[in-house]
Amino acid sequence: MEYVTDIRKQETVGIKEIMVDGFNNQVVKINGMVHTIRDMSEFAFIVLRKSEGLVQCVFTSGSFDFDLKSIKEGSTVEVEGVVAEEERAPHGFEVRLTNIKILSQPVMDAMLPLPIAKWKLKTSLETKVALRPISLRNVRERAIFKIQEGLVRGFRDFLFEQEFTEIRTPKIVAGNAEGGANVFKLEYFGKKAFLAQSPQTYKQTMVGVYDRVFEIAPVFRAEKHNTTRHLNEYTSVDFEMGYIESFEDIMAMEQQMLAHTFEFLKEHYEKELKLLNVTLPDVSKIPQVRFDTAKELVSEKYDRKIKNPYDLEPEEEHLIGRYFEEECGSDFVFVTHYPAKKRPFYAMDDPENSKFTLSFDLLYKGMEVTTGGQRIHDYETLVKKMEGKGMDVSAFENYLMIFKYGMPPHGGLGLGLERLTMKLLDEANVRETAMFPRDVTRLEP
Amino acid sequence: MEYVTDIRKQETVGIKEIMVDGFNNQVVKINGMVHTIRDMSEFAFIVLRKSEGLVQCVFTSGSFDFDLKSIKEGSTVEVEGVVAEEERAPHGFEVRLTNIKILSQPVMDAMLPLPIAKWKLKTSLETKVALRPISLRNVRERAIFKIQEGLVRGFRDFLFEQEFTEIRTPKIVAGNAEGGANVFKLEYFGKKAFLAQSPQTYKQTMVGVYDRVFEIAPVFRAEKHNTTRHLNEYTSVDFEMGYIESFEDIMAMEQQMLAHTFEFLKEHYEKELKLLNVTLPDVSKIPQVRFDTAKELVSEKYDRKIKNPYDLEPEEEHLIGRYFEEECGSDFVFVTHYPAKKRPFYAMDDPENSKFTLSFDLLYKGMEVTTGGQRIHDYETLVKKMEGKGMDVSAFENYLMIFKYGMPPHGGLGLGLERLTMKLLDEANVRETAMFPRDVTRLEP
Repeated sequence: MEYVTDIRKQETVGIKEIMVDGFNNQVVKINGMVHTIRDMSEFAFIVLRKSEGLVQCVFTSGSFDFDLKSIKEGSTVEVEGVVAEEERAPHGFEVRLTNIKILSQPVMDAMLPLPIAKWKLKTSLETKVALRPISLRNVRERAIFKIQEGLVRGFRDFLFEQEFTEIRTPKIVAGNAEGGANVFKLEYFGKKAFLAQSPQTYKQTMVGVYDRVFEIAPVFRAEKHNTTRHLNEYTSVDFEMGYIESFEDIMAMEQQMLAHTFEFLKEHYEKELKLLNVTLPDVSKIPQVRFDTAKELVSEKYDRKIKNPYDLEPEEEHLIGRYFEEECGSDFVFVTHYPAKKRPFYAMDDPENSKFTLSFDLLYKGMEVTTGGQRIHDYETLVKKMEGKGMDVSAFENYLMIFKYGMPPHGGLGLGLERLTMKLLDEANVRETAMFPRDVTRLEP
Repeated sequence: MEYVTDIRKQETVGIKEIMVDGFNNQVVKINGMVHTIRDMSEFAFIVLRKSEGLVQCVFTSGSFDFDLKSIKEGSTVEVEGVVAEEERAPHGFEVRLTNIKILSQPVMDAMLPLPIAKWKLKTSLETKVALRPISLRNVRERAIFKIQEGLVRGFRDFLFEQEFTEIRTPKIVAGNAEGGANVFKLEYFGKKAFLAQSPQTYKQTMVGVYDRVFEIAPVFRAEKHNTTRHLNEYTSVDFEMGYIESFEDIMAMEQQMLAHTFEFLKEHYEKELKLLNVTLPDVSKIPQVRFDTAKELVSEKYDRKIKNPYDLEPEEEHLIGRYFEEECGSDFVFVTHYPAKKRPFYAMDDPENSKFTLSFDLLYKGMEVTTGGQRIHDYETLVKKMEGKGMDVSAFENYLMIFKYGMPPHGGLGLGLERLTMKLLDEANVRETAMFPRDVTRLEP
């Protein structure tokens, strides 16, 4: 009988291992994809791309039997050589080759559509996204999604520490919890179904089970605007927690989550932060301001008329961001007490003025990255509010069940991962920070 | 200016803190949902349900001003009391109440449709699933999904350790990579789109970027069979790795991943494992057997005719599981070299016999929980195979791009999370281990 008992011991080493072991003439095997070849006639630099970074290899003509023309960018190889200190090379070392074994080959006469080995891809976003399968091989492009990975890891790390339970809720759903027309429809075995715009009703349901829950998963919005900040499929970082005293508990949890996560990035993603020249924001204190006050402050300071007291235009959002940057030196600001008209039915009204809700948005550099607040937990109040909005209460039987049989006071938020990444990296378009963005015109790659 | 600077210091404590601090007459505040009330006339047990477990509180009539009738199952409360050792109570302590504050109320005359406070819900799967928002409040039911959480955490923990990068790929896609008719269609701004059946093409793409990648996310299959092992939306644990020597590297990585994950469960989810009486399997060595050999072994031992040498019926899968349990004492078996006919176009053929592929399934207690294998990485070979299958090669331009510009030898797998959980917990139906299952007839809750 044959058994699978362990991972094959790899003969090849990674960059990290070479750096730990030092550069003193050790002989190594290393594999990677040919990133560039610079042929200097007597010798050639063959730069390998590995997940961790680049490795400069030096091939001296005639030193062993190898035809440089047999490889090109995109070939994958396993090389052998001697490690030598070289401060001009990435990571401060190079590998002087004694052997090259070809593992796989691209189409040899295919010309790369993008110079991915360049430091910066000086090409339009349109082209970059259309050629994502290749453009992501650029070292800076791929660093973006390492940082995004780090954000998610940081969030999870924090939320587990705070005793949240990770949940998995369905993306094919029967109802349309957020209201509005921006929902993708599909046929489900003869029934009408939707793609979930958010896990809202499910995460509230799970607060009745685990007190505190989170989910980091795709959500789908059939919004027709094609802007720099909208995606039709994006990653929502959702959490929901019970036994809160007020919606301010939610804001505090988010502030701590961000603080923890930026620390996490600093600790584990230093290389990528440096590569993209990212300065982590200070979130040790995030200003908070009422929606109506924010509008007034901005109107006064920037001499801008308030057109609609119950709505926030993107321009105003931008100015609120600017105001708090200028006045408090903060990239973030919590705007609280959004008008009830602008919030979904499940938002808890402010008992002091039911035109407003116990809710908030978090703005980052003038753009909304989070929406959250306290939810109604009382069955009668919820049914009344739904009826007041002309909703078909009977369609929400499964959701209303949780309130009928008891729910603690609770609230939560949804954070757009791609938007947060965009602002952190100072990108101008959210498509830069979506691995394979989906927008009104883009369904591929 | 007001600032958000920290989480409010909670006055209430959790079970863990009480247990650490000991039971010696400390006065505590604790919150939770009323799980049951047992009125013994002179006194009453009020059992609170918290995320961590149950807390037995004792209310003595007249000890303070409180009407027991003002709460019921589903009320949420914050209580104060003195902790006392009580070995018959959960966690070995009870709280002798000195005060009760009501935080929220269910509909007071609503009768719970299920006795969720019972140890075991003796009700049909049908009812349990239909009432999931409530049935999940049962202590055993919710433990199922804690263990599922633990599996995912264990996988991630292992994969990060092995230098995999976590990726997020789109669920709305233009093509149908796995082939077949079992794909959900939707309208995407006037274009035809699909829900991703797997992240296959994307994860291969990302091997060209990060060498090793993984994604744990929902996948969608419009399969019409309504069986005990099929879901139409499920969680797929996918990984894909470059620079492999053979598909056996993938099996070894999975064997180690499972070993790590079961260790992780043992360490962090002991309470839930005990609660559900789970015995963790030994995966230190997993037998492997060729597809054709497995069929012969089973045919001989169980006196069963081989009907179709290129297909495996569920009954045969079951018998293969039984065979290796009986012969090697293993709940798991890798079945390798599946027939090319039964594998998608991207599977690498066995160079020794192109009727078979360098692929495998992992069976757990006689059921397939993983499918994996080595993929074709050579452009010409792949195009030829697609053409041989009569596929429209031009529809795969974005995918083929990665091979044109170079891909390392690579392979990977997809593991069904709900199926793995099902087998681990010895459940008879995969719906038991899906939080909100989707099947041919079920779109709610």
